[in-house]
Amino acid sequence: MIGGFILSHGEKTRITVEIYGQQYVVVGHESKEHIRQVAQIVDDKMREIGRRNPSLTTNQLAVLTAVNAVHEYMKLKEKVKELEQEILKRRVD
Amino acid sequence: MIGGFILSHGEKTRITVEIYGQQYVVVGHESKEHIRQVAQIVDDKMREIGRRNPSLTTNQLAVLTAVNAVHEYMKLKEKVKELEQEILKRRVD
Repeated sequence: MIGGFILSHGEKTRITVEIYGQQYVVVGHESKEHIRQVAQIVDDKMREIGRRNPSLTTNQLAVLTAVNAVHEYMKLKEKVKELEQEILKRRVD
Repeated sequence: MIGGFILSHGEKTRITVEIYGQQYVVVGHESKEHIRQVAQIVDDKMREIGRRNPSLTTNQLAVLTAVNAVHEYMKLKEKVKELEQEILKRRVD
């Protein structure tokens, strides 16, 4: 089964990727290489979490992969804030 | 059904969160507030993608939410690289 998904507006790229044995059509204006890389990371992460928690259903696995990705995103957002403050501080000095 | 998940090593916090109608035990050394916020973002994102693509299964929805989160993470990583280069450039000047 194929699920369509729009990453961003402006539909330029359309690519089919396989994640955890299922195919997904990803549509967006990112490069195919970027989308393939994102799909690979999600696939790897699901397999990694699945190995550590063999009792989880695929559904739970996917949700926890999303939880993990958002957690990493928020940590990185904190880093961006710190770097921006450092740049601002240097401008003032 | 509850799925256990370790966000990071050092198991200090243990919290049950609800995402898309299902409960998950998240264990990690982040604050409960941070974990609740992450769960809320994943829940919101799943509902948003679900509204736009009503034919998707919950499983596909969760995978595409993970795809979206990893995509946002990679964009932010690019920004971190740029900010770090800017700081490095200012040090050299």
